[in-house]
Amino acid sequence: MTDQKLGQRAAENLKAIRAKKPLIHNITNYVVMNYTANALLACGASPVMAHAPEEVEEMVSFAGALVLNIGTLTKAWVDAMLIAGKKANKLNVPIVLDPVGSGATRLRTESAKQLINELSVSVIRGNASEVLSLAREGSRTKGVDSIHSVEEAENAALVLAKELNTTLAITGPIDLITDGERIFRVLNGHELMGFVTGTGCTATALIGAFLSVDRDPVSATATALAYFGLAGEIGAAVSKGPGSFQIALLDALFGMDEKILSNGAKIEV
Amino acid sequence: MTDQKLGQRAAENLKAIRAKKPLIHNITNYVVMNYTANALLACGASPVMAHAPEEVEEMVSFAGALVLNIGTLTKAWVDAMLIAGKKANKLNVPIVLDPVGSGATRLRTESAKQLINELSVSVIRGNASEVLSLAREGSRTKGVDSIHSVEEAENAALVLAKELNTTLAITGPIDLITDGERIFRVLNGHELMGFVTGTGCTATALIGAFLSVDRDPVSATATALAYFGLAGEIGAAVSKGPGSFQIALLDALFGMDEKILSNGAKIEV
Amino acid sequence: MTDQKLGQRAAENLKAIRAKKPLIHNITNYVVMNYTANALLACGASPVMAHAPEEVEEMVSFAGALVLNIGTLTKAWVDAMLIAGKKANKLNVPIVLDPVGSGATRLRTESAKQLINELSVSVIRGNASEVLSLAREGSRTKGVDSIHSVEEAENAALVLAKELNTTLAITGPIDLITDGERIFRVLNGHELMGFVTGTGCTATALIGAFLSVDRDPVSATATALAYFGLAGEIGAAVSKGPGSFQIALLDALFGMDEKILSNGAKIEV
Repeated sequence: MTDQKLGQRAAENLKAIRAKKPLIHNITNYVVMNYTANALLACGASPVMAHAPEEVEEMVSFAGALVLNIGTLTKAWVDAMLIAGKKANKLNVPIVLDPVGSGATRLRTESAKQLINELSVSVIRGNASEVLSLAREGSRTKGVDSIHSVEEAENAALVLAKELNTTLAITGPIDLITDGERIFRVLNGHELMGFVTGTGCTATALIGAFLSVDRDPVSATATALAYFGLAGEIGAAVSKGPGSFQIALLDALFGMDEKILSNGAKIEV
Repeated sequence: MTDQKLGQRAAENLKAIRAKKPLIHNITNYVVMNYTANALLACGASPVMAHAPEEVEEMVSFAGALVLNIGTLTKAWVDAMLIAGKKANKLNVPIVLDPVGSGATRLRTESAKQLINELSVSVIRGNASEVLSLAREGSRTKGVDSIHSVEEAENAALVLAKELNTTLAITGPIDLITDGERIFRVLNGHELMGFVTGTGCTATALIGAFLSVDRDPVSATATALAYFGLAGEIGAAVSKGPGSFQIALLDALFGMDEKILSNGAKIEV
Repeated sequence: MTDQKLGQRAAENLKAIRAKKPLIHNITNYVVMNYTANALLACGASPVMAHAPEEVEEMVSFAGALVLNIGTLTKAWVDAMLIAGKKANKLNVPIVLDPVGSGATRLRTESAKQLINELSVSVIRGNASEVLSLAREGSRTKGVDSIHSVEEAENAALVLAKELNTTLAITGPIDLITDGERIFRVLNGHELMGFVTGTGCTATALIGAFLSVDRDPVSATATALAYFGLAGEIGAAVSKGPGSFQIALLDALFGMDEKILSNGAKIEV
């Protein structure tokens, strides 16, 4: 698929979300709950946050996607994620995982690996060290500390995606998306995104919304990240700092013209 | 009471809140805590969030109102709501309940009903399906699925308010408030309010603030919703999307001129 | 140290934070997590929120400071604060405590005192009633109710800081900082700060960032509060109310010119 076709795909996906208003079920961290919900609303989706073990199965059964995020995890929350995730798998509701801080503490690394081992996860999004920390023992993937170039990171992600049988998105100045076969790169974005807490988590939630209307995880992820990155570019143009940017980003997600998205998405295959 | 008198009542209530700065005790959901607190501050009230079972009785004893919201409930949080609510009833501190998601999952419906059964709640605010899900078995109220017109919804609310012996507020493009005898309608508001998470929860918290200075639940609720809706209209006029609207709404709540509120409140009796 | 030298110190501290990007580990309340994280990012630091008992020791070992805040406490959270705090003490990671609501409920007063008794805390920041509620039985400090002038409050803080062997910051229109020997006053700030939830908590977190680069608790605290207060002045100048102020404050923290800070910091010794 060429860049241009993926731009069209981004616009089609956004249009479908705005038409269908899919319920996106989030079990996410306290820091980003409000911003994530607002970004999903701005995108056209219907967010819900629910983590009680007694209700997550029921809630996920109405959902177009399940977003799991371990940002302020405790064991009880991870247990709720497992209950919701197993039900999602049974119902073919796609799951996207954000392994916030995996690699930094044992609890986070082990919790992320447990979720991956016990659930079938469509997409995992994180930064390079988070994603590469997910390699199992005996993985042919180099650890993040022995990676010294973009090429090495791409190769590691390719190997890991195949081993984990999922789609990986490593986001940064350039986003890398791979399912172990295809590699897509998204060039949209703005450096102010690094100064607003939870932009990564928000990207993950938007991937959930795009997965609910596009069942190819690679194109759903790439188009979601292009949409989010382009909104970042548009928002940054009218911002004076990270405070006003955070607000302008929501306005840009909401106001995104589908034609502008189709033309402005920079996705390399 | 005529429309004009209710406009004056809205202005008087706002003035009283600004003068007394009542403490509003919230046991609410994670998503909206920050925005709710900021809206209460903008209104002139003093918000506090406290949910530990060891302290809720003490905290509510200082409060002008107790706001209960089941948005990201767990059983432990509902238990804390019951403890706080029983103390509030003993002290005649008015309670307002937001049954977020009641009707969607069993846990939410049952928790909302338990709160209503065990506490004396002054006002319940939600959308039509949340509120109408609260009917007890054997209720003469039609279920929300069998309601096909505004008239039917109003009749259902009237019957239910009488059965539950409380004031119900069903918010939407037009807000309906009834205690089973009187029906008030509030016409203020703006469609952007539906694109900011927690505007409903914020309305509920503002009803709490108004209840702390106006012990007629119907007029407290109607005037709070008119104030909030009018602030929404004022905020929307200077907004580019839901991000900037969310901010402009706080500015408008804070800056609301009491005369403008008196004239701009659209409350039909 | 003169006022001018402290202005320079404020600028140096900010410059050091922007260069080193210290990790600031927060165990804080739900209401302010998002805003606190955004303020720390705007300042140049790297915030992390983590409260699981299994990971707080590991997380704090990477940190430049530990911020403890009891705003929406439960016993489980206080336990996590104690685990993290003991590790921080072992590693000489400075701790700053925000005793939100101490004096209002027994749980808060006792939890704050327990943290102070079991941990070595570098700085405690609160309003006058919160800070003065921390006096132990038999303290020579007057209770807050018997304090009728600024002089009496300053004397009480001086005595209490010596008794608790820590640095106290009582913030308000004028901020008072004392370690029982020295007294600094910070005159920067704006009244709109009182209409945004969590500005106190944010001040506490920024003190953490400044402590990570300035091991004199008195100058770290005074320079952090001058930086925050000056950003408040700058933000207020372009705001229409507390909504836009909250955003402009983040922009001002981010965009603060170090020379402007050096000249604009109003710290009296």
